[in-house]
Amino acid sequence: MSDLGNGLRRGRGRRPAEAVRAAALTATGEMLFESGLPGLTFDKVAQRAGVSKMTLYKWWPSPGALAFEAYFAAVEPRLAFEDTGDIEHDLRNQLRSFVRLLTADRGGPVIAALVGAAQSDPGLATVLASQYTVPRRTLAVERLRRAQQDGQIAPDVDLQVVVDQLWGACYHRLLMPAEPLTLDFVDALLRNLLRGITQT
Amino acid sequence: MSDLGNGLRRGRGRRPAEAVRAAALTATGEMLFESGLPGLTFDKVAQRAGVSKMTLYKWWPSPGALAFEAYFAAVEPRLAFEDTGDIEHDLRNQLRSFVRLLTADRGGPVIAALVGAAQSDPGLATVLASQYTVPRRTLAVERLRRAQQDGQIAPDVDLQVVVDQLWGACYHRLLMPAEPLTLDFVDALLRNLLRGITQT
Repeated sequence: MSDLGNGLRRGRGRRPAEAVRAAALTATGEMLFESGLPGLTFDKVAQRAGVSKMTLYKWWPSPGALAFEAYFAAVEPRLAFEDTGDIEHDLRNQLRSFVRLLTADRGGPVIAALVGAAQSDPGLATVLASQYTVPRRTLAVERLRRAQQDGQIAPDVDLQVVVDQLWGACYHRLLMPAEPLTLDFVDALLRNLLRGITQT
Repeated sequence: MSDLGNGLRRGRGRRPAEAVRAAALTATGEMLFESGLPGLTFDKVAQRAGVSKMTLYKWWPSPGALAFEAYFAAVEPRLAFEDTGDIEHDLRNQLRSFVRLLTADRGGPVIAALVGAAQSDPGLATVLASQYTVPRRTLAVERLRRAQQDGQIAPDVDLQVVVDQLWGACYHRLLMPAEPLTLDFVDALLRNLLRGITQT
């Protein structure tokens, strides 16, 4: 139960916790896309969001942890799945949206910096898993599961592995760059995985 | 043309450059697998390899750059491909060897730390690409190309994309951990990609 409605109160009344939290996440998300992870501090977020630094410390153990949650909140709508009943269509749309987020919409450097920082920071690694990796996997597996139930994906396919072979392949090009992240790449990922690459 | 043979000279004669370089790479590789990237300094490498720090500075712009080259030199034999003429067999063996390197043989934390550091260090990112990502891709694509020429892989398949859907999928589980890196995972990767995941 959110009490966001209370945000309409004027004057000295403190903003409800949910509203303060949302303001911090929004401000952090904007700052991430503007100038990236380096330089993101609780001071700057507090100033922009109009919240106290103490409040930020209460909710997030570090600016990195706040950044992850803000990133996921900012991109979550872009990671949502349609369900038109056609899994190939829905995967293509979702993956194209994801690749656009990483490239044209400049999310790539942000997520690369966050994943990079998590490699040497166990606290950030925990937040990466709980706030980003696991929920993102779950959104994909839920849509894939319905396709499996509909008979569009073979019943013995491990759907978690499919996530690694579609989104994981994109992260590979992002984090270990050598080949471009393009919409053609998305089409090739889907063609390979749906039909198989062996000569028929 | 290596002049390693000169390394047999005794006394005050300086070791040839190739031998010094090899000693530095070997010492760095050992230190990486023993204690990881944090704490790896030119001082420590110079002491262990019996080379001067000036020499290290001459060849490598940073300890991270040296670490990448050392890591690739250490694991290169593990990334080599058999060519038995059966692409599924050879991919399975190579991917199993790679997953064992990342898990049982403790290479995973080393490469995760290197890739992580590269996200915020453009110099290291350049070394990651030139010393690791690109040569590793090339080894895989060369083997896949022969399979394509032999008619085991369909002629219109983009082989670079296959690399992202096999090794890239493994890196996804390494760098954004949520699901385990196992030999069963390798089998599922190959089954999905070779046969396709759609209901037939």
